[in-house]
Amino acid sequence: MALTEDDIQPQMTRRRPGQSAITTPRNEKDRVEIQSGTEFGITLGTPIGIRVLNENQRKQDYGNQTMDLYPRPSHADWTYLEKYGVKASSGGGRSSARETIGRVAAGAIAEKYLREAFGVEIVAFTASIGNEFLFPPTPTHPTSATNPEFLKLIETIDRTTVDSFLPVRAPNAEVSERMEKLVQEYKAREDSIGGTVTCVIRNCPSGLGEPCFDKLEAKLAHAMLSIPATKGFELGSGFGGCQVPGSVHNDPFIKAPAVPAGQTHATVPRPRLTTKTNNSGGIQGGISNGAPIYFTVAFKPPATIGQAQKTATYDEEEGVLEAKGRHDPCVVPRAVPIVESMAALVIMDAVLAQKARESARSLLPPLKGVVPVGQGRPQQ
Amino acid sequence: MALTEDDIQPQMTRRRPGQSAITTPRNEKDRVEIQSGTEFGITLGTPIGIRVLNENQRKQDYGNQTMDLYPRPSHADWTYLEKYGVKASSGGGRSSARETIGRVAAGAIAEKYLREAFGVEIVAFTASIGNEFLFPPTPTHPTSATNPEFLKLIETIDRTTVDSFLPVRAPNAEVSERMEKLVQEYKAREDSIGGTVTCVIRNCPSGLGEPCFDKLEAKLAHAMLSIPATKGFELGSGFGGCQVPGSVHNDPFIKAPAVPAGQTHATVPRPRLTTKTNNSGGIQGGISNGAPIYFTVAFKPPATIGQAQKTATYDEEEGVLEAKGRHDPCVVPRAVPIVESMAALVIMDAVLAQKARESARSLLPPLKGVVPVGQGRPQQ
Amino acid sequence: MALTEDDIQPQMTRRRPGQSAITTPRNEKDRVEIQSGTEFGITLGTPIGIRVLNENQRKQDYGNQTMDLYPRPSHADWTYLEKYGVKASSGGGRSSARETIGRVAAGAIAEKYLREAFGVEIVAFTASIGNEFLFPPTPTHPTSATNPEFLKLIETIDRTTVDSFLPVRAPNAEVSERMEKLVQEYKAREDSIGGTVTCVIRNCPSGLGEPCFDKLEAKLAHAMLSIPATKGFELGSGFGGCQVPGSVHNDPFIKAPAVPAGQTHATVPRPRLTTKTNNSGGIQGGISNGAPIYFTVAFKPPATIGQAQKTATYDEEEGVLEAKGRHDPCVVPRAVPIVESMAALVIMDAVLAQKARESARSLLPPLKGVVPVGQGRPQQ
Amino acid sequence: MALTEDDIQPQMTRRRPGQSAITTPRNEKDRVEIQSGTEFGITLGTPIGIRVLNENQRKQDYGNQTMDLYPRPSHADWTYLEKYGVKASSGGGRSSARETIGRVAAGAIAEKYLREAFGVEIVAFTASIGNEFLFPPTPTHPTSATNPEFLKLIETIDRTTVDSFLPVRAPNAEVSERMEKLVQEYKAREDSIGGTVTCVIRNCPSGLGEPCFDKLEAKLAHAMLSIPATKGFELGSGFGGCQVPGSVHNDPFIKAPAVPAGQTHATVPRPRLTTKTNNSGGIQGGISNGAPIYFTVAFKPPATIGQAQKTATYDEEEGVLEAKGRHDPCVVPRAVPIVESMAALVIMDAVLAQKARESARSLLPPLKGVVPVGQGRPQQ
Repeated sequence: MALTEDDIQPQMTRRRPGQSAITTPRNEKDRVEIQSGTEFGITLGTPIGIRVLNENQRKQDYGNQTMDLYPRPSHADWTYLEKYGVKASSGGGRSSARETIGRVAAGAIAEKYLREAFGVEIVAFTASIGNEFLFPPTPTHPTSATNPEFLKLIETIDRTTVDSFLPVRAPNAEVSERMEKLVQEYKAREDSIGGTVTCVIRNCPSGLGEPCFDKLEAKLAHAMLSIPATKGFELGSGFGGCQVPGSVHNDPFIKAPAVPAGQTHATVPRPRLTTKTNNSGGIQGGISNGAPIYFTVAFKPPATIGQAQKTATYDEEEGVLEAKGRHDPCVVPRAVPIVESMAALVIMDAVLAQKARESARSLLPPLKGVVPVGQGRPQQ
Repeated sequence: MALTEDDIQPQMTRRRPGQSAITTPRNEKDRVEIQSGTEFGITLGTPIGIRVLNENQRKQDYGNQTMDLYPRPSHADWTYLEKYGVKASSGGGRSSARETIGRVAAGAIAEKYLREAFGVEIVAFTASIGNEFLFPPTPTHPTSATNPEFLKLIETIDRTTVDSFLPVRAPNAEVSERMEKLVQEYKAREDSIGGTVTCVIRNCPSGLGEPCFDKLEAKLAHAMLSIPATKGFELGSGFGGCQVPGSVHNDPFIKAPAVPAGQTHATVPRPRLTTKTNNSGGIQGGISNGAPIYFTVAFKPPATIGQAQKTATYDEEEGVLEAKGRHDPCVVPRAVPIVESMAALVIMDAVLAQKARESARSLLPPLKGVVPVGQGRPQQ
Repeated sequence: MALTEDDIQPQMTRRRPGQSAITTPRNEKDRVEIQSGTEFGITLGTPIGIRVLNENQRKQDYGNQTMDLYPRPSHADWTYLEKYGVKASSGGGRSSARETIGRVAAGAIAEKYLREAFGVEIVAFTASIGNEFLFPPTPTHPTSATNPEFLKLIETIDRTTVDSFLPVRAPNAEVSERMEKLVQEYKAREDSIGGTVTCVIRNCPSGLGEPCFDKLEAKLAHAMLSIPATKGFELGSGFGGCQVPGSVHNDPFIKAPAVPAGQTHATVPRPRLTTKTNNSGGIQGGISNGAPIYFTVAFKPPATIGQAQKTATYDEEEGVLEAKGRHDPCVVPRAVPIVESMAALVIMDAVLAQKARESARSLLPPLKGVVPVGQGRPQQ
Repeated sequence: MALTEDDIQPQMTRRRPGQSAITTPRNEKDRVEIQSGTEFGITLGTPIGIRVLNENQRKQDYGNQTMDLYPRPSHADWTYLEKYGVKASSGGGRSSARETIGRVAAGAIAEKYLREAFGVEIVAFTASIGNEFLFPPTPTHPTSATNPEFLKLIETIDRTTVDSFLPVRAPNAEVSERMEKLVQEYKAREDSIGGTVTCVIRNCPSGLGEPCFDKLEAKLAHAMLSIPATKGFELGSGFGGCQVPGSVHNDPFIKAPAVPAGQTHATVPRPRLTTKTNNSGGIQGGISNGAPIYFTVAFKPPATIGQAQKTATYDEEEGVLEAKGRHDPCVVPRAVPIVESMAALVIMDAVLAQKARESARSLLPPLKGVVPVGQGRPQQ
């Protein structure tokens, strides 16, 4: 595959802190350098090594005397000590969200492949901050999945639109403004607030995911809950969908519309059936059905706040901790490219597994009395 | 480890259909037989083979002519065909929830170990059915995590109590009654409804889970989303926690209370610090902190309903499908032991990984200037 | 894939004891029953469960009082106890070579696929018993790899021919006779003897195996050394090849001959180059080059012998052990189908991995300035 | 664990080319720099990143016009192209033996742990070059395993002694001299020659390795055959052991001698029984028995030779290739630390797996009627 730094940099830049007043003021440049695995701009098949230098670490922010005494509440300091028996002096060390740089770099590569091979489009956006929602739950729509406006949004939203709503990345002018104001309020109080990110994967091939333990949603949930500060994951209709009757929740099948001839990936076979609604979120029985896959990820309010906190020292003494480090009042907008990247990695893995199966199968003689495989709807 | 069928059967029986009028009337006996891996009631260290015969399968329920023509909406029929290129005739084949028998059997073994070794207690219960909640979200408590009554419940609830609220398994007489009524209504309409299961893991050792991709909540989310019909997972404060300010959400540390001397596992070291609140749900930075781990899993309304559904055949023809098989209007009460079992399996894996690390470390000479490891609070 | 018991039984039968006077007299029937994973003779994509009942176990042979006292020399009794802390009463339990039944059943399935998809042929035979060799090392040919007669044999040998030399399965009448006599001598003395099995994999696709830790030969070695009673593995020229100068050992490239049009798998692309000699054994840099892959596996003399042995009890007392169980004086002939099966499993895994890669790559737009991939030599 | 560059550098230096006239003249410095995973000389539990700069790569040696035309015989050029569809210009790219630097660095860390925790000693040495052997096979001793002199050597040999026989690293003055002369002859002819490395692991805990597919010897074979240029692996009596009768080959058990009180690791429990002979090579039934583990690895003559070679171009044209790069006439002496490193990595993995098991088991209440575990022979 053709691959240069230019394929990776854009998502790195979207993840970068310092993009606006409401995110962390660290102004890291996060320039990507490919160290190995490509030659003349083409991947060699061997591991791709990437280096991103940390140009702006201020060690003194962390590692001050107070922070040596106190495990920060709801941070990883204490559990790392419980696990490893040692503590790193530099700002929580491995549990720093700076770790997500590697995820975003890898995700950008996976995403390029998926886009070139299938026209896959992965777009995430801020769905809520605090109690401000793009689609607040209502008695009629306890889940946005049943809301036609929401479905229209996930079918059309792109990254340019999302980024036009910086700094919050919620694609709705009015809600976006309210969210920004909310974050400013929390910032002013040296407090923090959480929120949710919704992500859609369009043009995903059908047949991805394994039927039992490695259902596609299970792998997505695993990937999303591995992002720092996440607290929840829901696919399709999600938690709100538990309140919808089966007769409404079930997605009836309909004949899939023909892919317009002019479309870039018109030659990639698509399933002959699709669903009229999409409460399933594009996955049924653990396996993608070709419809847009969408899910929402919950991010807690950042643990590092400027306010003084009553807590205990490593030595069990009560006391007051005041954190002086730079910190985000809300991580949600910056989490958008991280969620996209993890989604790309999960889909890439599932594509490789399924392609192995399909490709191996295609070499066998045809079976009698069996529905032919991969015989998608012909294009117009 | 001592192990006989008697250690496994109780959870199998709790999972069994036919426990009440509101669950599926199939009256499977689900008797466990250990085939290998033990001798004289003791595990040999080698794989444990278990057989549970299916005594009451009525093939004709499935595989009827109608069902051969239609992929059932929101079921796995269509995606299995897309993935494998063949379809099994017998009731959705591998995607049948009967598959969860194996999970429950394995989970019962893991659970016995965890109980004997650490006094781990894993208890799940129905937290909501449709729009009936044990702890409905309120402006003050958008998440039940901040509600002291909820925290008290998860610290004390046991399986006997949960089962005293059969058929719904929601440990509150009034709510339970409303839930049962709600399910009956859906049953009467040949419709179905979803709900949520909350699960708590008490006395879990600290230090479990990996810091990056295999955070403990990521593994739990993976396991839970691999259960058929699940749509979401949230840890601790979860989605509601996104609406709580960091200053409230952070869990301050306090000196851990001494374990009463009489308690069975008083010799197992516990962390010296614990948290005053538990919005983290017992996991911080991906690693258990020793506090109760709790999480909630969303289950959709079952896809198989008696009502006629307008949908399409495998051959893209519009038509109406009427399912005649036995089916649950609500899977939530039966999901309780399945959630517990998957939780036990995840914790068991994490225990083995952490024990390898701790045990290997314990063989090294002591390091200078490093906090001694595993030096929990001494017992009274 | 079409699959019935008939595809699996033949190799099971070849593995079965009791095929001749020189192998173990246990007359197990080893009938294969497929329990799951197929329907109407076609695989469903889901796990294939197979059952082979043990019809002729005589527990009393093992488990006698003497054997309860002594760990059998060079058997697994002692190390299992050291590992697991318990001992199984029934004949060494899991370390019994009866365990290889599962390997042979699984291998037969893999082999069927490889044969149908690529025309892969896997044939093993006895290469030596004691000091009787099919191709004894000589100063000119310290390795049989440089011997044109040997190369001719591995290019043509088939299972029918190998089995026509039962009971020893060494495809040379004279050597075979000497080997049989040798085994009879050891049997008469209640002693045992080892030997080697050579296996060839023909028509293996090129490109299989990973460049670093999972080289194809590394996976083959892993698989072969996991067979009970094995002591060594060598690929191609092997140990003898260490004595050959590089100028002789290097395999020069030549244009590959065209595949005859009539040949079944003439449509499967083959590499454009092949090697003139094949000291590499079909693998270079860890990756298959399309030439026959061949390797040799060493089997030790069986540990269970009728002769009395001076040894120690579990309680460290000196004493004399006399084993009364049924036992082979030489396992080499029966190991032939086991070696073939493990080879099939390794190649199948490598095919799936490489097909994932090739198939994924084939969906990308063509790269400029890069040699097109998979553009094998056209057929005549 | 305490860890600095000084723990890693010695093995890196032993692996380095340019140690004598008979190895490659590239004079790389191979200085190790730890980039992450330690702080103040102590490991943090997180991944350890190490950098070794390549100070002396001469790209022009490779990548010349001739080498662009020809795949080098018995090198990875052709198979990499078959696998990946692209070729790297720089000297075979990933298949360069320079890749083994990472193995040696990682191995040094594993080895430090094993030495500190158990007193494990891993020592490899050159056992043969061409037809010069430390212990040539004889009719009495077709395997050196039955030769008491060999057993004495593996029980006592250390690295200082091995390195005192540089450049060949065969611990016998007379044989060493003959080997050195032999290599010089091959060098003079611009040819190359192979050989074998024997490695011993002393004080390895018992109980390591899995009973079925991941037998300890299978993992060792996998690891060794993943080293570039290897052709074979044999454990204990190995290929020669196939010629020894079972009555001689079996290793009788004896009471283990007490560990002298003064010995460093006298507190680590050792098995109560050991074997009188050691044809098993320290592993029985796939599991270590506590006796010295020893094995031999075959290395082929290096493929890159100065002599002109008749071969074919990538375009199937016949021609003559003359390699101009720097190259070793024999890789065996330099392979010594690589073999040691891979051995350390395999043992480390097996230790962690077994410690997980033992540690988990130790938390259970004692079982009735079961031999207590890990109750080694008490020290004097």
